[in-house]
Amino acid sequence: MYLDIVSIHILNITRGILMIIGVIGTSNCTSEIGNLAEEIGRGIAKAGATLVCGGLGGVMEYACKGAKSEGGTTLGILPGMDKNDANDYVDIPIVTGLSIARNLIIVHTADALIAVSGGYGTLSEIAFALNVGKPVIALHTWVLEDAGKVDDELFLRVEDPKTAVELAIKMGELKN
Amino acid sequence: MYLDIVSIHILNITRGILMIIGVIGTSNCTSEIGNLAEEIGRGIAKAGATLVCGGLGGVMEYACKGAKSEGGTTLGILPGMDKNDANDYVDIPIVTGLSIARNLIIVHTADALIAVSGGYGTLSEIAFALNVGKPVIALHTWVLEDAGKVDDELFLRVEDPKTAVELAIKMGELKN
Amino acid sequence: MYLDIVSIHILNITRGILMIIGVIGTSNCTSEIGNLAEEIGRGIAKAGATLVCGGLGGVMEYACKGAKSEGGTTLGILPGMDKNDANDYVDIPIVTGLSIARNLIIVHTADALIAVSGGYGTLSEIAFALNVGKPVIALHTWVLEDAGKVDDELFLRVEDPKTAVELAIKMGELKN
Amino acid sequence: MYLDIVSIHILNITRGILMIIGVIGTSNCTSEIGNLAEEIGRGIAKAGATLVCGGLGGVMEYACKGAKSEGGTTLGILPGMDKNDANDYVDIPIVTGLSIARNLIIVHTADALIAVSGGYGTLSEIAFALNVGKPVIALHTWVLEDAGKVDDELFLRVEDPKTAVELAIKMGELKN
Repeated sequence: MYLDIVSIHILNITRGILMIIGVIGTSNCTSEIGNLAEEIGRGIAKAGATLVCGGLGGVMEYACKGAKSEGGTTLGILPGMDKNDANDYVDIPIVTGLSIARNLIIVHTADALIAVSGGYGTLSEIAFALNVGKPVIALHTWVLEDAGKVDDELFLRVEDPKTAVELAIKMGELKN
Repeated sequence: MYLDIVSIHILNITRGILMIIGVIGTSNCTSEIGNLAEEIGRGIAKAGATLVCGGLGGVMEYACKGAKSEGGTTLGILPGMDKNDANDYVDIPIVTGLSIARNLIIVHTADALIAVSGGYGTLSEIAFALNVGKPVIALHTWVLEDAGKVDDELFLRVEDPKTAVELAIKMGELKN
Repeated sequence: MYLDIVSIHILNITRGILMIIGVIGTSNCTSEIGNLAEEIGRGIAKAGATLVCGGLGGVMEYACKGAKSEGGTTLGILPGMDKNDANDYVDIPIVTGLSIARNLIIVHTADALIAVSGGYGTLSEIAFALNVGKPVIALHTWVLEDAGKVDDELFLRVEDPKTAVELAIKMGELKN
Repeated sequence: MYLDIVSIHILNITRGILMIIGVIGTSNCTSEIGNLAEEIGRGIAKAGATLVCGGLGGVMEYACKGAKSEGGTTLGILPGMDKNDANDYVDIPIVTGLSIARNLIIVHTADALIAVSGGYGTLSEIAFALNVGKPVIALHTWVLEDAGKVDDELFLRVEDPKTAVELAIKMGELKN
């Protein structure tokens, strides 16, 4: 863990700003989806990237838990006005008071996003991401390409958490 | 036209607040899609409802033009900081300075929405609408039901502008 | 009243977009301050301008009531997610779901603002207005010029509602 | 520096979430004001707190520079859509795309704020902070108590950076 901290700080010095990967998904999820989210969180932390999410429960909490288990840093962009709404694995709660408009801040802040399962809220985040040209890695989520014309260089479907993280980091690097 | 003004004001007195129907769609559209949007705008005005949209060009402008041709009232929720960004058929420009976050205000302000064609921005508005329980009438737009689980009492596909307006008004009334 | 409607529509055709005057002030006010706000609302409507405010009670409600008594049009930019939060004199509720961030939309939407009494919320709106170069007419409100450097061409102190409206219309015209 | 990292992480484990102190002030400042901001940034980092600011130049940059010189963590809540707008001393750029509405996120995210000098933007942040009950420590900024009724338990005037930080930390602890 010591080495992790050092490597992050070295990365920080080298790059100026760390890569930030967003994880989006429902606040109500099955433990199966939760396990995927947790593995994604672990992968993001291992890659030396910072995790940003909506800071609440479900996919967000599992992802943060995974990131913290590997000594990563987690940002929670909260919809309400109380930082205590954040799940226990959020290091830095960003309190917006903007309700679901905070979804856009997650999208803008991330270099690339991973969508895991999710409902309408996740769909809106995916759409906003594509709208502003941010890559989205899709794992067990909306099959957008069946619903209309989607840029397949921005919306990438994967089948497992490991590939999701690898692709997100790769796409995020292209954005930096 | 005189009678229209009087009838609107009578409606206003009767109901307290007029019904507001949102029209969402791309700022770049073909004239074919534009004609659909214009007919939708006309229908909304004829039904005595107020039209709300993003206030810019394309589908938004055609819809406003249609509404004004029938003496309707049009609201444009603008993303920038200058009311002069509004198209020529916007009566009341609401200037947000919030960029694409203004999409949420369109959704919250409308009693029901009609999506006409559209890209990622329209998709995000559809998703936000469904997320907050606002009905969306879909005309030549994303086939969301092919992409995931969608509530078919909120997301209603239609094939022509007339049915779109009728359903939007009906759904909007259920919300009031 | 008939003539008022006609003159507004003529103005509308001539100018494209009507002038919009913002009224800002506390949701808890004395009847004395309320009377001032109501007179301001009447004056705005008589001048053929549209009134925009936060749509809730106190100064906002009195101002809307005054405007409606003269056949004016009132916009309420609401902080919550329910249009029924609007006071009874709001014609067009704009539902933002953005909490106090809606204050900025009032400022951006108005061509000029009149501040009547008010607490911290009103102060923030005054500050935002000055920040984006919108004129503020001050009636029984913060004596900002005693607190720091203030542009006296943007922040104008008046002693009565009639002068407040006259100045707001004049300043608003300079902005158009 | 090693010890600092360790102590921060211990604090993190103990408290769940680190204290966050906001620094607000103009993006155009004299070097004299800049030196005050830098000393404030150093003080915040030494106290083990995280610094949040608007992420741009002037007071924001000086404060971040000070915090980084003591191994602190800095958050920049950016108004635009590009993380590269952040000054060189921002560790974590939060990209909002919300223009000046991002000021509210700074206020909501901080446990207490220090205002250093500043113009209308800073005034609006002070007003928003007081509006939501967040303490503001005032150093060479608006003399609000001369402009209207101000809660002297929330708006505290100080004469030097050291006292500013001490009071901010103390007030922030009361909020936690």
